[in-house]
Amino acid sequence: MYPFKTGSFAVHNGWYVAAFTDEIGEQLLARTILNKPVVMYRKDDGTAVAIGGRCPHRHFPLGQGERVGDEVVCGYHGIAFGPDGRCTRIPTQRGVPAVYRVPSYPLVEHGIWAFIWMGDADKADPALLPDLDDIGFNVNGNLAQPFFVEHVDGRYQLLNDNLLDLSHLAVLHRSSIGTPENASTPETIERSERQISCHRVMSNVDVPPVYPALGRMMKKIDRISGMTFHLPGFHAGIEQTRYPADDPRFAGQVIEDVRIFHAVTPETANSCNYFFAANSIDQSHLETMKNFLEPVIAEDKMATEEIEKMLRLVGENPDELLLKSDHNAVTARRMLQRLMDEERGGDPEAALPAKPSPADS
Amino acid sequence: MYPFKTGSFAVHNGWYVAAFTDEIGEQLLARTILNKPVVMYRKDDGTAVAIGGRCPHRHFPLGQGERVGDEVVCGYHGIAFGPDGRCTRIPTQRGVPAVYRVPSYPLVEHGIWAFIWMGDADKADPALLPDLDDIGFNVNGNLAQPFFVEHVDGRYQLLNDNLLDLSHLAVLHRSSIGTPENASTPETIERSERQISCHRVMSNVDVPPVYPALGRMMKKIDRISGMTFHLPGFHAGIEQTRYPADDPRFAGQVIEDVRIFHAVTPETANSCNYFFAANSIDQSHLETMKNFLEPVIAEDKMATEEIEKMLRLVGENPDELLLKSDHNAVTARRMLQRLMDEERGGDPEAALPAKPSPADS
Amino acid sequence: MYPFKTGSFAVHNGWYVAAFTDEIGEQLLARTILNKPVVMYRKDDGTAVAIGGRCPHRHFPLGQGERVGDEVVCGYHGIAFGPDGRCTRIPTQRGVPAVYRVPSYPLVEHGIWAFIWMGDADKADPALLPDLDDIGFNVNGNLAQPFFVEHVDGRYQLLNDNLLDLSHLAVLHRSSIGTPENASTPETIERSERQISCHRVMSNVDVPPVYPALGRMMKKIDRISGMTFHLPGFHAGIEQTRYPADDPRFAGQVIEDVRIFHAVTPETANSCNYFFAANSIDQSHLETMKNFLEPVIAEDKMATEEIEKMLRLVGENPDELLLKSDHNAVTARRMLQRLMDEERGGDPEAALPAKPSPADS
Repeated sequence: MYPFKTGSFAVHNGWYVAAFTDEIGEQLLARTILNKPVVMYRKDDGTAVAIGGRCPHRHFPLGQGERVGDEVVCGYHGIAFGPDGRCTRIPTQRGVPAVYRVPSYPLVEHGIWAFIWMGDADKADPALLPDLDDIGFNVNGNLAQPFFVEHVDGRYQLLNDNLLDLSHLAVLHRSSIGTPENASTPETIERSERQISCHRVMSNVDVPPVYPALGRMMKKIDRISGMTFHLPGFHAGIEQTRYPADDPRFAGQVIEDVRIFHAVTPETANSCNYFFAANSIDQSHLETMKNFLEPVIAEDKMATEEIEKMLRLVGENPDELLLKSDHNAVTARRMLQRLMDEERGGDPEAALPAKPSPADS
Repeated sequence: MYPFKTGSFAVHNGWYVAAFTDEIGEQLLARTILNKPVVMYRKDDGTAVAIGGRCPHRHFPLGQGERVGDEVVCGYHGIAFGPDGRCTRIPTQRGVPAVYRVPSYPLVEHGIWAFIWMGDADKADPALLPDLDDIGFNVNGNLAQPFFVEHVDGRYQLLNDNLLDLSHLAVLHRSSIGTPENASTPETIERSERQISCHRVMSNVDVPPVYPALGRMMKKIDRISGMTFHLPGFHAGIEQTRYPADDPRFAGQVIEDVRIFHAVTPETANSCNYFFAANSIDQSHLETMKNFLEPVIAEDKMATEEIEKMLRLVGENPDELLLKSDHNAVTARRMLQRLMDEERGGDPEAALPAKPSPADS
Repeated sequence: MYPFKTGSFAVHNGWYVAAFTDEIGEQLLARTILNKPVVMYRKDDGTAVAIGGRCPHRHFPLGQGERVGDEVVCGYHGIAFGPDGRCTRIPTQRGVPAVYRVPSYPLVEHGIWAFIWMGDADKADPALLPDLDDIGFNVNGNLAQPFFVEHVDGRYQLLNDNLLDLSHLAVLHRSSIGTPENASTPETIERSERQISCHRVMSNVDVPPVYPALGRMMKKIDRISGMTFHLPGFHAGIEQTRYPADDPRFAGQVIEDVRIFHAVTPETANSCNYFFAANSIDQSHLETMKNFLEPVIAEDKMATEEIEKMLRLVGENPDELLLKSDHNAVTARRMLQRLMDEERGGDPEAALPAKPSPADS
């Protein structure tokens, strides 16, 4: 499936954000993840758990049932399942066959996120979770807060592509957070086995259009804007602005130093969930950010959904003319393709999801 | 198609409810039955008839045309068809070719239902209609009345499965007509060639939650709850309640003795129409029943549509773990599959629609 | 695809109406034509142009971008394209590779229409445009005016079939512009290589039902009603009415003499755009026509969409019983099929889109 090889959908052996931790409570939370129905809830002892969301009896969604104690009771015929997925009660009979169960999925609360592992449970290594220090979760004493959960009618990789090329800030978000320098400034790129990073260091550039409304009256700033993709579905961004070095009064003083956290989780082949969060040193700035970022996220959702519609119109293998600025996205696609190939036992060297860039000049 | 063998959709040689008789009148009534468009109306002499609902000229739906005398006139170019399906008039020419016609379908008014036969017309045997005495149409002098016609976005067999396992009353309908005993009481089962019956006899059990609102102030009742499936699409239920044998004043006295009639008619592969009716000894109780059963039917429709959505998500051949309580549903599926195989001239012994039950304990 | 041979969708080497000229201005106008996204706009010098509507970088619809000078700037990453489709600017790099472009399409303003050529550009011969004199664009000094652009959820040929058999006026439009004679009067038919014409000359017939509301109080008229199909997608109709020869005061005097212009442009396999216009000697009559023709067009749209739904239900190859009155439609289908076969280099003699008419009597 574009932009991957035919038959490749998504990495399964990896941690994806299934929910913000504060979404999981006494009520059942149902979500489709990697084409599979999942239901999440919190046990009496507070532990968050995730089990399969389809009753194996008549395929009624368990998310439409109810949580009773630590169990989920199907709303159709009352069959109950424990947090390990094992059936605990069948109202029409005394015994419960050992085979009667739904899957259970490793679910780890980490920071403000509940990460799920939909692949082979025995490979669910917590060391593969994004490192909280690494992503700047509490950097500078910042507090992180969930902002939005957006359902997006577009394939997940379109959002990853979006986040892997921040030059779009200069155009798609030009009325709020972007300036031309977000596209024209060269990037520095770093890559490790399961990460790819890019940063733009911009000196003495115009402030983004949203600044005056925030009461920030300077005209020029130094700005660092970057993003690190933690495969397969987490992006940690940095937005750091300072007074320029030649400012007579505040030279070099920090204006803003926040981290923006984007998690993209495949739902079906043509849809995903997008979990958006950020941190900041003070609570009131978090509220401000949430307000001015709401239309920004709506723009990203719009772009993703418009592209999905376009793919529906023109078909699955559209001609794609790649640019130098696509280096990160193409590299990430190849890293994801390699992981998918490895999962299927295929030859990872065969992973060539996109044509080589002809447009690097 | 789940839960039948690949390529099996529905029995064609059988009577299905096409409409309540009181739906058919001077106006054309259009409905899709077994994937075929049908238009019904009543001739001047009062006879209800059914003909194909697609004009063979340009495929305009005849149901959007009008009835003129005993004929249906297409609303596009005015081509007219008689109640036998033969074309009677073409506005642009004098003669009418003998080949010009739409199908006509046997339609029999029987009780409050108009039954249609979509298969081979020469096999349309009225003896295969549900017997009115057998279904208790006028038992005790009860009067039958149509309640609802529901369009359901789910395959018909999901509703048949629902009606063939009344243990769901204890859970799906637990706020109105069900109590735990609807699941925990063993069933008695009877089966003949084109019927399968189940009954639960419950002694001295709690009244259903709806009773107080009906002004019935007893706490305990004896209750018989059952259903007979008349293949391929009609279910006649019984609901009989009495004061328990140990009631000091009214021991054994009948509280309620009604029949509930469910007809499930395939529309397309993924939708059906659900005709719901009941009878009672008095008219005012019919109104009461209609009111308190409306949300009950909505629950069944919801369950069916949720399962259809789940099948769309997880695919056509979901793992299904069967229970002892599925005996009726599985038997009925096999009976239907056998009829489908016979229609296609296949080997009926090959009919194995569902995996054997592993969970009977 | 019905009513053509499997695999045949539409003629590509032909002029289709992409828009009314007055729809094209400073803002981008996006439309899907023959399954391809197109964006149209007017250059600073007033020339209307059409280029491909999909950015080849990330498939974002260019129609959601903006026009800057003579260029279209993608709303996602700011890549700009000129009116010839060539990329002129990539914000993240200095140079622009020569391969970077979108298609450009010949677009010709002709009368009140902008005609587009989606096939081989070197075959785009303006001589194939409908001749303005031929279609009566300014006949009698009439003024032409765009009336409606309707999006129709049905395959384009259903609308062509509609326009090629005006006997439907007698039924579908019987409450407004049609009388029984629109079906019962024989047609005269003319045909050339890329045109097919039909006319009905009706003498001393009842006025159409809409006449009294227009203040026309005569009872009988002489009427000429006709249509010429200019392949592949333009129909020019004539509506001419006079007082009958035996009228004591106004014998032979013209009541109305207008031309009605219908353009049908395939959008996707199952949808099209329908451009409706007319001319008249005076402006006030144009307003009147626009008002009384609005429900007429809604009836044609309804018929087309109902047939499309019917085809979805009964499948792609419905039995079709053709009539004498289908001569024009069937001839036009064959002419279109022949053009499609020629485009694919196939044997045009193999073009037999419809069964021979059995119903000519």
